[in-house]
Amino acid sequence: MERIQLALIGAGRMGQVHGPNAARHPGLQLRYVVDPRPEAARAMAERFGAQVAGLEQALADPAVGGVLVCSSTDQHLGHALAAVAAGKTVFCEKPIDLDLAKVRAAESRFTGARFLLGFNRRFDPHFQALKAKLDSGAIGQLESLHLVNHDPAAPPPGFVPTSGGLFKDFTIHDLDLARWLLGEEPVSVYSTASCLVDPEIGRQGDVDTARTVLRTASGRLCVISNTRRSGYGYDQRIEAFGSAGMATAGNVAPDTLQVLTEAGVTGTPIHPGFATRYAHAYRAQIEHFADVLHGRAQPRVGYADGVAALVLAEACDRSLRSGAAVEP
Amino acid sequence: MERIQLALIGAGRMGQVHGPNAARHPGLQLRYVVDPRPEAARAMAERFGAQVAGLEQALADPAVGGVLVCSSTDQHLGHALAAVAAGKTVFCEKPIDLDLAKVRAAESRFTGARFLLGFNRRFDPHFQALKAKLDSGAIGQLESLHLVNHDPAAPPPGFVPTSGGLFKDFTIHDLDLARWLLGEEPVSVYSTASCLVDPEIGRQGDVDTARTVLRTASGRLCVISNTRRSGYGYDQRIEAFGSAGMATAGNVAPDTLQVLTEAGVTGTPIHPGFATRYAHAYRAQIEHFADVLHGRAQPRVGYADGVAALVLAEACDRSLRSGAAVEP
Amino acid sequence: MERIQLALIGAGRMGQVHGPNAARHPGLQLRYVVDPRPEAARAMAERFGAQVAGLEQALADPAVGGVLVCSSTDQHLGHALAAVAAGKTVFCEKPIDLDLAKVRAAESRFTGARFLLGFNRRFDPHFQALKAKLDSGAIGQLESLHLVNHDPAAPPPGFVPTSGGLFKDFTIHDLDLARWLLGEEPVSVYSTASCLVDPEIGRQGDVDTARTVLRTASGRLCVISNTRRSGYGYDQRIEAFGSAGMATAGNVAPDTLQVLTEAGVTGTPIHPGFATRYAHAYRAQIEHFADVLHGRAQPRVGYADGVAALVLAEACDRSLRSGAAVEP
Amino acid sequence: MERIQLALIGAGRMGQVHGPNAARHPGLQLRYVVDPRPEAARAMAERFGAQVAGLEQALADPAVGGVLVCSSTDQHLGHALAAVAAGKTVFCEKPIDLDLAKVRAAESRFTGARFLLGFNRRFDPHFQALKAKLDSGAIGQLESLHLVNHDPAAPPPGFVPTSGGLFKDFTIHDLDLARWLLGEEPVSVYSTASCLVDPEIGRQGDVDTARTVLRTASGRLCVISNTRRSGYGYDQRIEAFGSAGMATAGNVAPDTLQVLTEAGVTGTPIHPGFATRYAHAYRAQIEHFADVLHGRAQPRVGYADGVAALVLAEACDRSLRSGAAVEP
Repeated sequence: MERIQLALIGAGRMGQVHGPNAARHPGLQLRYVVDPRPEAARAMAERFGAQVAGLEQALADPAVGGVLVCSSTDQHLGHALAAVAAGKTVFCEKPIDLDLAKVRAAESRFTGARFLLGFNRRFDPHFQALKAKLDSGAIGQLESLHLVNHDPAAPPPGFVPTSGGLFKDFTIHDLDLARWLLGEEPVSVYSTASCLVDPEIGRQGDVDTARTVLRTASGRLCVISNTRRSGYGYDQRIEAFGSAGMATAGNVAPDTLQVLTEAGVTGTPIHPGFATRYAHAYRAQIEHFADVLHGRAQPRVGYADGVAALVLAEACDRSLRSGAAVEP
Repeated sequence: MERIQLALIGAGRMGQVHGPNAARHPGLQLRYVVDPRPEAARAMAERFGAQVAGLEQALADPAVGGVLVCSSTDQHLGHALAAVAAGKTVFCEKPIDLDLAKVRAAESRFTGARFLLGFNRRFDPHFQALKAKLDSGAIGQLESLHLVNHDPAAPPPGFVPTSGGLFKDFTIHDLDLARWLLGEEPVSVYSTASCLVDPEIGRQGDVDTARTVLRTASGRLCVISNTRRSGYGYDQRIEAFGSAGMATAGNVAPDTLQVLTEAGVTGTPIHPGFATRYAHAYRAQIEHFADVLHGRAQPRVGYADGVAALVLAEACDRSLRSGAAVEP
Repeated sequence: MERIQLALIGAGRMGQVHGPNAARHPGLQLRYVVDPRPEAARAMAERFGAQVAGLEQALADPAVGGVLVCSSTDQHLGHALAAVAAGKTVFCEKPIDLDLAKVRAAESRFTGARFLLGFNRRFDPHFQALKAKLDSGAIGQLESLHLVNHDPAAPPPGFVPTSGGLFKDFTIHDLDLARWLLGEEPVSVYSTASCLVDPEIGRQGDVDTARTVLRTASGRLCVISNTRRSGYGYDQRIEAFGSAGMATAGNVAPDTLQVLTEAGVTGTPIHPGFATRYAHAYRAQIEHFADVLHGRAQPRVGYADGVAALVLAEACDRSLRSGAAVEP
Repeated sequence: MERIQLALIGAGRMGQVHGPNAARHPGLQLRYVVDPRPEAARAMAERFGAQVAGLEQALADPAVGGVLVCSSTDQHLGHALAAVAAGKTVFCEKPIDLDLAKVRAAESRFTGARFLLGFNRRFDPHFQALKAKLDSGAIGQLESLHLVNHDPAAPPPGFVPTSGGLFKDFTIHDLDLARWLLGEEPVSVYSTASCLVDPEIGRQGDVDTARTVLRTASGRLCVISNTRRSGYGYDQRIEAFGSAGMATAGNVAPDTLQVLTEAGVTGTPIHPGFATRYAHAYRAQIEHFADVLHGRAQPRVGYADGVAALVLAEACDRSLRSGAAVEP
């Protein structure tokens, strides 16, 4: 198999997830690493036999077929635009941008582009198995969903001001999942929230514990449960209710060990965070990107999905302020 | 142990649950069965060596210490008032009445009365184990709840008009559970709902699929998930999230059988309805009533709990109509 | 329903299980309690409105239809013989006797008698559900079994000398289960064992940890796992393997509570002992005895089953001594 | 990290597991593929940029540091001897050979060699978690083990004659696990078996369904449950019983999906075979081999472990023929 050359933009938290996955894929090769921090760029490049480069150099190389945009959130859109303009196939971490107006303004420039947005949960084998069951009719007509997305521990101080807030930063994953699974667009959004985890989050104007209820035109309901700190690991679950039954995708633990003593039956803690919980999903996402690059697939998550999720996240914010359900 | 004499008012659906449990209790004896349908009264009376009687006769007998009010919902309040006026200790099926104004008007007449309201879920061993864990601090400070209450199958035609609607008839159990577990009164109520199970329910002005979100003054959140037809049994679950972890009470199946074949791992269906799912809770409720009658306990669920749950159910109705969160 | 009169012989450990279950059954009435210890007899009799009586008096009363033999093991056979000779229908706790020769010598005197032997596990709903699956062909042809029977804690000192040893006292339950489920008689028995729980058990000539392997003529295999002290509760499980799959009956916990913290996922300990674990089975056993008394059923477990299980238990002892598989 | 060069001997079933794992390891590089079937060798070599070579050529190259012996069972020992003689570090698929005399005769030639034997189960994360619990004292002193190893489906015709029989071919994995977990050598071995899966297996002199009981000097007991065809997937479980509790490693399913309908609660089938069930273990094994090659670890499973397991497998065969427990 020919190995298509890639440029990785951003060697930080998400770059360290996607870069290695891409480098190990038999159909991809990491050629350039772009990062304003020379140390980070060099470390990643050396690890996989790539070169450190500037953005222009990387995008100007006609041998580069694909670009992985893993820069900081406020640069996603700019980098994605540059890569698309250079004719590259683009994988872009979510969110496209926190500013809906900017995202909408740029939308036309992505028309016809090969662009894959990084909503990783759509590639999780547990959630895909659930989606397949829904599509198979195993539980009849879908009527409602319950999505649980609880982070294990509160983000570090300083994270909140640039995060976009709980809904745009965190709930947005669930809003995308909801759209994917409901098969209909929400027409009503209600959110309520509290600051129970860390008062500092509240002082910075954000919330850390929220519940959101979506309603579609046909009456399907979806509840989203979010918290910034679970105290028990990374709680990632879906329950789907249909006219003929229920399907669930449960939490995942690293092993099946159980210990029985007088104190009870104790199983291994669930995964402590996204890196291990979604390790398989991140690999599958890059495999899909490789398929797109090799012309074997169309991107399963596109720019329009990013816009739609951001619209819903803004609606959550509006609902929270107004105390009423709002139209997205 | 002395056996305290009881009168059972109503030998219908709930009378057939509570009557036998009371009759079999070593500290209670069923003396009278009161029911406008002579056949039903006679069958129950003969089964347990009791007499068929009119209401006045039963209440006038000084040997009768306790009364079980299991009549139709629109008669609960009248029967309870008569029994209290006759100086009896009263067990009354929920709800007290569907009309909040009537319930409030009668409240003063229950002052000092020994009155146990039939919110059976508080006596369920699974839910009690969860409550004990919350009280023990095992998951830190309680932050949010998720209550699932899904009936197995839609009610018969003709049920809706006299039911009081989904919130007063069905959600009211969850509203009581929420008050019991949250340890704080809700200050905000949001409900949204659809009619997905049976269009006839919608034609009669009710809904069959609902989500309710409660919020307390300190910011605790509670989601209630209701449907009239699950397709997979009587789904009765609680999830509680605290600052240090999560506690859940799960569904119950009649046995632990599992069958593994090429088709997967299949366990026994969960309980199909309230009679078997809450059999233990119903017995425990009557045991508690016996303890009250024998002077060993104060009623754990009183008239004021009935009022408070009804107030919340009315708030659900108001929120559904307005599309906004309301104060209860 | 007419209430058939019963005499209870023995108000000790098992009498306190069966006596109350019989007394509460709507078709049975406890008339006599026979026990050499006046206190125990009186306490039981008063609790259920019965009389204290001697054995002859109780058996001579023609009003007595059934006898519950719950005396000490060395008296089971004598009491059962007397009751059968008096024409009573007999429920007898297991084992019939520890001496196979005596049991065989008495066998002819039980011909035609209505005699139910107390192998309670056959009445457990979990094991009955498993048996029904086997009979339904859900896992094809049965090929092998794994039976786990682990007591929670070692017996008190002084128990071993009169117990008959691990196999006759404890494994005998599993040997009966094996016969019931295998559908064929074992033709080969191998046992090996150790004394790991309490050296005192070893000093008294017994073992406390054993594995037994049975083989039937058609080649079906059955492993029995026994220990006198589990450290985690009363472990009672069955695994059945067939040509098309596997069926299991698992351990039972008093509730479904689960607590998730950083330390893991912890469920409620399984039942701590036979009284709660088999509470349902003990009730069902008495219900079956009531059915026998009322002529609605034939005894499901008879004298011959007691003989067969004892034969197998003796084979376990022989195999343990010889180090080889033996014929039963 | 320097990439150490490898030669892969055998591109068949196990070579297709280990070759790719080695080729993808960042510290290893596949240089030669040796296989008498040119097509198989070429396909593997092309896939990973390696060369097809003869055995002598590959072993003669001083750049080659490690050799993966994945040839047919009857060639394992010869290839391992040649590689060790050439000074290479060797990974060898189990078993070393089916002939214990040959294996013992060669043992001295492996003294001092860096030799890793392919007992993959020791590298499984579930079993390793269980081992760590045992070592931590979480269940007190280990007293007994139950090992389940059920293949999903009977081997193809023609497999039996060269397989060495059920014990040497299949049970040998469990015998190694038992030695690893028991912490003591078995001093007594009893096996019984049947031919229930496929009469053809019996006609060829082998068995397909077996139970083995091991006993150590201190009295620890271990049961091994084997069958060639489960009907429900690849059943791979361990139960460990100690003085203070029990620890289990359970079956693994590809996802956590559960579907609840009126028919029950159905989970995804467990893994259908070794390739997916032990995918993680196979990778971890090669990672360990890489650590050995890079001088960061000593081989965790050596030649002596292969001898010991084979000794036990021969004892199983002897016990089966004699009907008695034997010394290994």
